[in-house]
Amino acid sequence: MRQQRMLIPTLRDVPGDAEAASHRLMLRAGLVRQLSSGIYSYLPLGLKALQHIQTIVREELDAAGAQEMLMPALHPSELWKASGRWDIYGPELMRLEDRHGREFALGATHEEVITTIVKDEIQSYKKLPVTLYQIQTKYRDERRPRFGLLRGREFLMKDAYSFDRTATGLDESYQSMYNAYERIFTRCGLNFRAVEADSGAIGGTDTHEFMALADIGEDTIVHCPSCQYAANLEKAVGLLPPSPSSASKQPKLDGRPKKVHTPKVTSIKQLSEFLPISPKQIIKSIAIEANGAPVIVLLRGDCEVNEIKLKNVLGASEFIMLSETDIQKLGSIAGFIGPIGLQNVKIIADSSVMGLQDAVVGANEADYHLVHVDVERDLADLAYHDLRNVTEGECCMSCGHQLSFAKGIEVGHVFKLGTKYSQSLGALFSDENGASEPIIMGCYGIGVSRVLAAILEQNYDERGIIWPASIAPFAVHLLTVHVQDEVQMKLSDEIYKSLSRAGLTVLWDDREERPGVKFNDADLLGFPLRITVGKKAGENIVECKERRSGQQYELTVQQILTHCQTFFQTGGRSSHE
Amino acid sequence: MRQQRMLIPTLRDVPGDAEAASHRLMLRAGLVRQLSSGIYSYLPLGLKALQHIQTIVREELDAAGAQEMLMPALHPSELWKASGRWDIYGPELMRLEDRHGREFALGATHEEVITTIVKDEIQSYKKLPVTLYQIQTKYRDERRPRFGLLRGREFLMKDAYSFDRTATGLDESYQSMYNAYERIFTRCGLNFRAVEADSGAIGGTDTHEFMALADIGEDTIVHCPSCQYAANLEKAVGLLPPSPSSASKQPKLDGRPKKVHTPKVTSIKQLSEFLPISPKQIIKSIAIEANGAPVIVLLRGDCEVNEIKLKNVLGASEFIMLSETDIQKLGSIAGFIGPIGLQNVKIIADSSVMGLQDAVVGANEADYHLVHVDVERDLADLAYHDLRNVTEGECCMSCGHQLSFAKGIEVGHVFKLGTKYSQSLGALFSDENGASEPIIMGCYGIGVSRVLAAILEQNYDERGIIWPASIAPFAVHLLTVHVQDEVQMKLSDEIYKSLSRAGLTVLWDDREERPGVKFNDADLLGFPLRITVGKKAGENIVECKERRSGQQYELTVQQILTHCQTFFQTGGRSSHE
Repeated sequence: MRQQRMLIPTLRDVPGDAEAASHRLMLRAGLVRQLSSGIYSYLPLGLKALQHIQTIVREELDAAGAQEMLMPALHPSELWKASGRWDIYGPELMRLEDRHGREFALGATHEEVITTIVKDEIQSYKKLPVTLYQIQTKYRDERRPRFGLLRGREFLMKDAYSFDRTATGLDESYQSMYNAYERIFTRCGLNFRAVEADSGAIGGTDTHEFMALADIGEDTIVHCPSCQYAANLEKAVGLLPPSPSSASKQPKLDGRPKKVHTPKVTSIKQLSEFLPISPKQIIKSIAIEANGAPVIVLLRGDCEVNEIKLKNVLGASEFIMLSETDIQKLGSIAGFIGPIGLQNVKIIADSSVMGLQDAVVGANEADYHLVHVDVERDLADLAYHDLRNVTEGECCMSCGHQLSFAKGIEVGHVFKLGTKYSQSLGALFSDENGASEPIIMGCYGIGVSRVLAAILEQNYDERGIIWPASIAPFAVHLLTVHVQDEVQMKLSDEIYKSLSRAGLTVLWDDREERPGVKFNDADLLGFPLRITVGKKAGENIVECKERRSGQQYELTVQQILTHCQTFFQTGGRSSHE
Repeated sequence: MRQQRMLIPTLRDVPGDAEAASHRLMLRAGLVRQLSSGIYSYLPLGLKALQHIQTIVREELDAAGAQEMLMPALHPSELWKASGRWDIYGPELMRLEDRHGREFALGATHEEVITTIVKDEIQSYKKLPVTLYQIQTKYRDERRPRFGLLRGREFLMKDAYSFDRTATGLDESYQSMYNAYERIFTRCGLNFRAVEADSGAIGGTDTHEFMALADIGEDTIVHCPSCQYAANLEKAVGLLPPSPSSASKQPKLDGRPKKVHTPKVTSIKQLSEFLPISPKQIIKSIAIEANGAPVIVLLRGDCEVNEIKLKNVLGASEFIMLSETDIQKLGSIAGFIGPIGLQNVKIIADSSVMGLQDAVVGANEADYHLVHVDVERDLADLAYHDLRNVTEGECCMSCGHQLSFAKGIEVGHVFKLGTKYSQSLGALFSDENGASEPIIMGCYGIGVSRVLAAILEQNYDERGIIWPASIAPFAVHLLTVHVQDEVQMKLSDEIYKSLSRAGLTVLWDDREERPGVKFNDADLLGFPLRITVGKKAGENIVECKERRSGQQYELTVQQILTHCQTFFQTGGRSSHE
């Protein structure tokens, strides 16, 4: 392609409102333009990169035996009402009426549609298992679209759905998609981790998220540098190092908690400073209401409650904090709640509380706490669960190594759905004996446009993008320094044709611009190899620059083709000595 | 691909409500399924065919120098208001509000969006010309969606837009797209004609429609079998053969019209029978109001008025029929209007009236007509225009040959937009002298999903689809008669691998079904070649059947690959003796 007339509107300045690196790079390199909040047009270079991702996705899913299809974005409301999601999806689901007043949703996901199709078309076990996928535009009306393509309202997604007869079959379908995802993200050049995730209170068992590591990521990943363990913060578990032995400065009494006056001291921080004592010696008591009953939740003072784990343990889809009045009804008082002496209320504890000695708890009395609490002695019958977010310093449950934390962008998600949709929408199959069973489903998503953003988050420097060879809009940027120079143009034309004939994609910068502008644009656009035809054109010598390594060297015209081919055959890594 | 687990739900029965052949075939062969009126899912086979069309479109547009991009379907209402189309597009434009109450349209077309992008990114003549295209989902809330993919509400379209500095530049961009369209539809295997179309009263000059010939088509095409002339009925012009000389049975008078009593005779048909006289001797007078003034339109009695031509001649976007009261105000009476003696009213005539002798007109008096009218003598100052639909029997204006009529499906459209959108949306460029000018635009559409339907309308027989090789979901249907027979399965497996390795796409029917079912399905699915592995498998002999020609012959295993390759290299036409 010749650059002169291509729509590649590079920008010198970083747009002020673009927070994420990928967003800034996409705007500066002319890959996308915003049409409305969270809604983007892909300009030619951006679309090429997006198509390369799609090709990788297709190749790997096809190889895994999945079948591509294409479903509409307009979904009749009846389907979403049948699954129950019309009401619970909330304002993120965009809705409209047609000219006859019939309600439609703009598909945010396609479980309802695919399950309806499979229900109509597959009745026998003989047709199972099957995995179907599509690459299609999705709509979610995010309250706060941001970070460019990372959180948009109209975006490109690959969604796949597996249909099995048995749980074992689902396991196999799931693993097959999991493996395909690893190959896809590897081929996309992403630094990623597959992490365990929470499957939610309703339906589903296993679920993994594929996280591209990046500081801009909105998800926290906990992983072990020594073994394979990785999970998102919602799901991650760890082992707390043992608490330091008693650090209380209060005098010890003879095996009984002692009530101490702690006027207006209601927070862990205040208490820790007042006594003084490490927060690790304080037992936090959180009073909530779940499933209509009060519950006291105990955690070590330096730990945070993990709401998802708590909901799962309680078997509750929601919980609320107890009001001051309700706390009083329990015989306690807000700010001074403690587990000792409270009756008629369920108490559950995070494992961080286990075995604490010489600890501090609220005294259920205004301005008083109990110190010298020994959990084994004074709280003998506690039910322990994992209720906290893993904290820095905890150790891997598998290998004992200290866990690491990282930020990640969720680029993919594999999920065992079970029979939630097949039951609500009536997708049944008859087995070998003629008995009717709901089909067992899995669903598998990849945020195709988000992958593009994640790739950029991981591949740039201060000069611009550094494309992985597999995704780069063009393999080679051919740059003619002076387009008025006939020798340079003639040589450039030869190189352009030779590389193109060999199947390499070449963008030829034939613009009448100052060389500095062209070099800067080339670095910003960031294709793997730049070939510059300049003043040595008469000697048939050009300059080659590798964008990633920054290596720069001369090549004779005779060397160019072989050099480029070797470079890309080895995955776009430097092969130059 | 092995057919056992592929989602190809063939149907034995024709669904009752499917009127169009393509719609019936798509449902029966499991290519698509309806989700809602005018909204379809593409199942795996349908999507493959659709993707083949997309590939052809991309290759030809890229070769023509157009650049692919991708725009969103959600359009902020402001853009459509700026172009003025928010109000005039009517209920076909689907609209919705986001969670903040902001209005959006679901893109029915993308002039507003592309013009805005170009306005923001292209300011200088140096960046022009440029042609941009996308293949993207469009939404139009048709009042009466029908014929399956022929008239849907959510459909796949290729839309392209050219941007030029000069009218000559536009001519070149237009011709380049026109030529690409001819290549595209030819490669898709369509029998089509490019026809002149009307560009409408507002904006635009040239426009052509690409029509796939098919009886189900909703458009009438007029074309000359002898020269290149072709136009749609709205636009077509022709030469009427001269009227027969006076056929009136009324006695002739001495060079003056004669008033005759024609009680309650108000239609051409009644008049023709009453007098009796050929309708070709009657001059029809139609009283309308356009631009706020009455107009009498004259046509020969056997001709129909062409509303588009009439509007264009009058420079009016609409016209209405005159009421009886308004006709009386002109000094006439409904049913007996005629051009002679009417004053203070504009009279225009279709060229069919020119030179008529011994003709009949209304007398502007209840129950009376005038006969023996000589147009040259009695209506000397008539303004003549082309105001009629061309009728069977008219001749080509270019070569004189009698014109033919056909029905067509509009699969493509090229249109010179001019500056309508660049002016309303402010897309200006500065020329060499720094002067600011609106960019001159063209737009070019292909109904990608409609092309799929049109291909089927032209390629089937009573047994099912007959795919053109370029579009067929698979090239070869490999059919194993008895899958329990190890010899047959082993040979099938070898053939499957050998053809696949050579890059041929093969669907292997490995289902445990009765042979009759499999043969019927193969004919219904209609891939170009069927290779049947049956009872001669032990002798390494298979049967090959060409779907289009119906030819059937045996091949040895050694011959298969070469035979298939030769068959497809010659475009899927029979090469077998």
